[in-house]
Amino acid sequence: MGRWEPNARGRLEEAALALFAERGFEQVTVAEIAGRAGLTERTFYRHFADKREVLFPDSSPLVTGFAAAIEAAPPAAEPMATVAEVLGTVAEFFTGRHAYSRQRTAVIAANAELREREAVKLAWLVDTLAAGLRRRGVAEPAASLAAEAGVAVFKVAHAQWVAEPEPRDLGELMRRALIELKSLTGAG
Amino acid sequence: MGRWEPNARGRLEEAALALFAERGFEQVTVAEIAGRAGLTERTFYRHFADKREVLFPDSSPLVTGFAAAIEAAPPAAEPMATVAEVLGTVAEFFTGRHAYSRQRTAVIAANAELREREAVKLAWLVDTLAAGLRRRGVAEPAASLAAEAGVAVFKVAHAQWVAEPEPRDLGELMRRALIELKSLTGAG
Repeated sequence: MGRWEPNARGRLEEAALALFAERGFEQVTVAEIAGRAGLTERTFYRHFADKREVLFPDSSPLVTGFAAAIEAAPPAAEPMATVAEVLGTVAEFFTGRHAYSRQRTAVIAANAELREREAVKLAWLVDTLAAGLRRRGVAEPAASLAAEAGVAVFKVAHAQWVAEPEPRDLGELMRRALIELKSLTGAG
Repeated sequence: MGRWEPNARGRLEEAALALFAERGFEQVTVAEIAGRAGLTERTFYRHFADKREVLFPDSSPLVTGFAAAIEAAPPAAEPMATVAEVLGTVAEFFTGRHAYSRQRTAVIAANAELREREAVKLAWLVDTLAAGLRRRGVAEPAASLAAEAGVAVFKVAHAQWVAEPEPRDLGELMRRALIELKSLTGAG
């Protein structure tokens, strides 16, 4: 097999996710993933350190996108306006990824170690968002609270989005979740 | 050494935390912890599976307290009123634990694996709180959003509390953080 396979990474991701969904993350070997993708194990290891990295890449596009969006957001007086900007960019990232996201979420939900990894990634998003807000002059504890609220809205809206077989508008789900959070805290 | 040492668990916890704070979590051995506590390694392993369990016990009093508080909260129409009840109970749990909590937080902040473990624990608190709210009849996504907001308030207020050498009122810090969260989401 040639060293440079066209879209090897994408084929490996697709094969891995399909196998994880069919048989559970623990049961699947790297050899099987490579075989399903029509590639070698050696090619797999050129793209991923292990099978977990297929689900949690070192430079996750979501994590990178989150960090870039907070830097790119227009100057705004209110921290939550900046957070809403970031969430809008995040919603765009998920466009066309509904089927993939549903499958990935189901695979992660079925495995304790993967659920923990996802919790760590979300905590990292909070830290990234809070640091971005502080760099924009938002004081503590407002920066951390706004970052927590933003990632909470993302988590809850994303869970609603993947729960349904047909894709709704993730951006709209996040806007509604933010309104509901406002209403909840106002009434508490 | 006798099999039943008085307060062996507490002495081991204290010795472990002091050693972790002095030299870093990775550098400390179970033999050293037992030695500092004047106990044997065997006694250590009767109380903890490994040194990480000293910081993250299987039945953490905080986690157990959180779960109990949500069950014990009086019936309330508003989800955030229930969350505020739970936070009040949590604040009581930390009474008299300021020095311990400061030291524990510093040890965890210095180690990536421990920070991940803490993120997982907090995600578990969110799930526990959301499940408790759903059992009380709160619908989704309100239950998850209120739970996220409650744990966010706890995280941020606890971080403020341990940041200062003298203990302030943790309950008051949480009440203020909740007010700030309300003001942030209202302005966004």
